[in-house]
Amino acid sequence: MSACEFESLEKSLESHLPEAELVEVKRILFGKETKKLVLSACAVEAASERDFELKGYKFDAAQEQLRPPRNIRVGLIQHHIVLPTDAPVLDQISAMHSRIGEMVEVAAMCGVNIVCFQETWSDHALCVLRKHHTLLPRGEIVELCCSAVNTLGTLAKKYNMVIVSPILEREELHGTLWNTAVVISNSGNVLGKSRKNHIPRIGDFNESTYYMEGNTGHTVFQTQFGKIAVNICYGRHHPLNWFMYSMNGAEIIFNPSATVGALSEPMWSIEARNAAIANHCFTCAINRVGTEHFKSEFTSGDGKKAHHDFGHFYGSSYVAAPDGSRTPGLSRTRDGLLVVEMDLNLNRQISDKWSFKMTGRYAEYAEQLAKAVQHDFKPKIVKE
Amino acid sequence: MSACEFESLEKSLESHLPEAELVEVKRILFGKETKKLVLSACAVEAASERDFELKGYKFDAAQEQLRPPRNIRVGLIQHHIVLPTDAPVLDQISAMHSRIGEMVEVAAMCGVNIVCFQETWSDHALCVLRKHHTLLPRGEIVELCCSAVNTLGTLAKKYNMVIVSPILEREELHGTLWNTAVVISNSGNVLGKSRKNHIPRIGDFNESTYYMEGNTGHTVFQTQFGKIAVNICYGRHHPLNWFMYSMNGAEIIFNPSATVGALSEPMWSIEARNAAIANHCFTCAINRVGTEHFKSEFTSGDGKKAHHDFGHFYGSSYVAAPDGSRTPGLSRTRDGLLVVEMDLNLNRQISDKWSFKMTGRYAEYAEQLAKAVQHDFKPKIVKE
Repeated sequence: MSACEFESLEKSLESHLPEAELVEVKRILFGKETKKLVLSACAVEAASERDFELKGYKFDAAQEQLRPPRNIRVGLIQHHIVLPTDAPVLDQISAMHSRIGEMVEVAAMCGVNIVCFQETWSDHALCVLRKHHTLLPRGEIVELCCSAVNTLGTLAKKYNMVIVSPILEREELHGTLWNTAVVISNSGNVLGKSRKNHIPRIGDFNESTYYMEGNTGHTVFQTQFGKIAVNICYGRHHPLNWFMYSMNGAEIIFNPSATVGALSEPMWSIEARNAAIANHCFTCAINRVGTEHFKSEFTSGDGKKAHHDFGHFYGSSYVAAPDGSRTPGLSRTRDGLLVVEMDLNLNRQISDKWSFKMTGRYAEYAEQLAKAVQHDFKPKIVKE
Repeated sequence: MSACEFESLEKSLESHLPEAELVEVKRILFGKETKKLVLSACAVEAASERDFELKGYKFDAAQEQLRPPRNIRVGLIQHHIVLPTDAPVLDQISAMHSRIGEMVEVAAMCGVNIVCFQETWSDHALCVLRKHHTLLPRGEIVELCCSAVNTLGTLAKKYNMVIVSPILEREELHGTLWNTAVVISNSGNVLGKSRKNHIPRIGDFNESTYYMEGNTGHTVFQTQFGKIAVNICYGRHHPLNWFMYSMNGAEIIFNPSATVGALSEPMWSIEARNAAIANHCFTCAINRVGTEHFKSEFTSGDGKKAHHDFGHFYGSSYVAAPDGSRTPGLSRTRDGLLVVEMDLNLNRQISDKWSFKMTGRYAEYAEQLAKAVQHDFKPKIVKE
C-alpha cells in the first residue's frame, strides 16, 4: 500500500477497532469528541455531485452568564490542481477558479462565515519555484493575483463570507515577490494581507531563492466573525510565530500549507494542535492534495536524482481547539471541505482553566531572548 | 472500559489493525519507526520478576564523515507509590527508595547512561499540596530530600550513571519550598539543580499555594553523556520554556511529570514531541502511574465535590526525536522502565535539514516580545 493510496487514519481506526477500544483510542489521540454537524441535504448532494468530501464538526463551549455564545463556522478547502501542469497557464488558473467557486458555494450552503484555501491555491505547487518553470513567466503573476482578489471579492460579498486567499504576490513598486495571504472581508473589500514569515530551505522546498521573509509581522484581522491571523505553511514549525499572532489577539489562526508525506506527515498532527493548546486559540491546518507532475525535471540540492514531482500532498486538513481536542482530518487523497462550528468563548474559558498566558512569565523571556540573540551570549551551562 | 483499565494505545492498534494499514497508521502517528533494542536476558528477567514493564528502542542517525557517532542510552522510570498514603511517612519514603533502587539496577543492566524519574518521585502526588496533608509535616522535607540525594549519589557512582531526581526541595536559608530536579553526575556528586519554572493553578493542581516559580532559569547540565536540561511537569505547556533550554544548548530535555487522564491526556503526546521537533533536540516525557487514595478529602476550587484522589495518573512515558518520530509509550497502568538509545548527532543533522533555528528570526521576536510585555502595548489589529 503506497502512502498516497491510504485514505485516512480515522477511517482505518474506525474500520478495525472494537467500539470500546475505539472510544479510548480516539480520546487519547483526539481529545474530547467533536460532535458531527448536520449539514443541509442540498450541500451534501452538491458536494457529492462535485466529487469532493464534505465533513462537518462542532466544538462546544460552556454557556456563560455574562457573555452570549459566539458561534461561528469556518470552512477549510483542500483540492488537487485541475489541469495538467503543462496546460496553458490561463487555462490552469481559470479551471482552479471554477473549482474553488463551486466549493465555496457549498461552503455558503453550510453557513460558513470564514473560509480559507490552501497555500498558493490558484497555482500548482511549483509556482513557488517559478524561476524553474518556463510556463509561468514572471510578468503574469501580479495580474493573476489581482484578478483572483477581484473574483473572490465578489464571492465574499455575495455569500457574506470572509475569504482567506493565499497567493504568490508581486509588490508593484519594486517587483518583490512574496508568499502572501490576502484577507477579504465579507464586504468584498480587501481587509489586508499577511506575508509568510519563515521561509523553508529544505529538499524541494528551497523557497528562499524566490521570495523573502515576510515584513508584515503578526497582523491580526478583526472580522465580523472574530479576530483571525494567517501563519503560512513553514511558519507552523515555529512556536514563536504562532505565539506572536496570539499575543496580538488572534482567536483563530489559519495555516494554509503545501506539504508532502515523506517530509512532514508525522509532524502535521502535532504542530498546529500544539499551537492551539499553548495559545488558547483555534488553529486551522490546511494542506493541498494530490501528486503534481512536471514535464521539466528539477533537483533539490540534496544529492538525490532529478525528478518530476514533489511527492504526494497528503491533504488531512483539520481544526484544533484550545482544549486539546481536534476534528478528524479530511481525506489524504480527495478534494474536501471541512466545516467546523466553534464557540469562540471557549478560548477564554480554557485560558481561565489552564492559565498558560497568566503563568507564561513573558517579561522574563523577553529579557532572556534579548540576551540570547547577542553575539556575546554565553549559554548557561553547568559543568562538574 | 474505564480509562485506568485501558493499557495502551499502541497495544490496541497492534492487536486490531491489518499489517499494511498498521504500517501506515504508525507512520502517520509516530513517524519513522524506532527499532526495538535488544536488552540483556538478565535485565528482561529481572524486570519480569520485579513486576515492571521493560521496553527498549533505538533512534538511528546517519553515519557522518567528520564526527563519530554519539550513541548514549537514557532510561525513563515511571512507577506507582508503594505503600498506602496513610502509612508512616518514613516507611513510604523507604519503600519508594527500594522500588527505585531495583528499577535503577535494571537500567544499569541495560547500559543506561542517564536515568530520569517522575516528578516528586519519592512521595505520593499530594506531597506537593503538603499543607493539606497532616502526615508529612514541613520539617521533615529537607532531611528527606538530602537523604535522597545521598542515596542516589551512591547509585550514580556505582552504575556510572547520571541520575535526574525530581524532589520537593526546601531551601535552607529562608525555608522556601521549590519543586526541583537534582542532577547527580555519574561521579556521584550533585552537578546542580533546576527548579520548576511554571506553576499550575488548575483543578487539583493548585500548586502556586505551596511553592514559587523557579529562579534557576534555563540551566543546562554538561554531563559526560551529553548536555541535558529538565523542564518539570506544567512547564511542558510553555513552548518558550522548552525553547530557552534549547537556546542554552540542551541536547536532551527531560520532562518529569505527574498528571492525570481527565486533565491532560490528549495533550500528552503533543507537547513534548512538538518541543523535540521545534528545537532540534530529544525530549523525554515521564509521568507517574496509578490512582492514589487519600484519607482526608480535598476540594479544588472548581465547584466539584470534595474527593479522595486526583484520578488516574496514566504513565505513557515516551521519548521524542528531532525528526518528528517517537517511541511507543510505556503502559498506562504499570510501572515501567523505557530504555532508549539515541545518537545525539541526529540533532544537528535534523537542524541542517529543517533549519528552524537558522530561519527563526529570533532577534525580531526579542524586539516584539519586549514590546508585547509593556503596559502600553497595542496589538497589531487591522479593522475595516
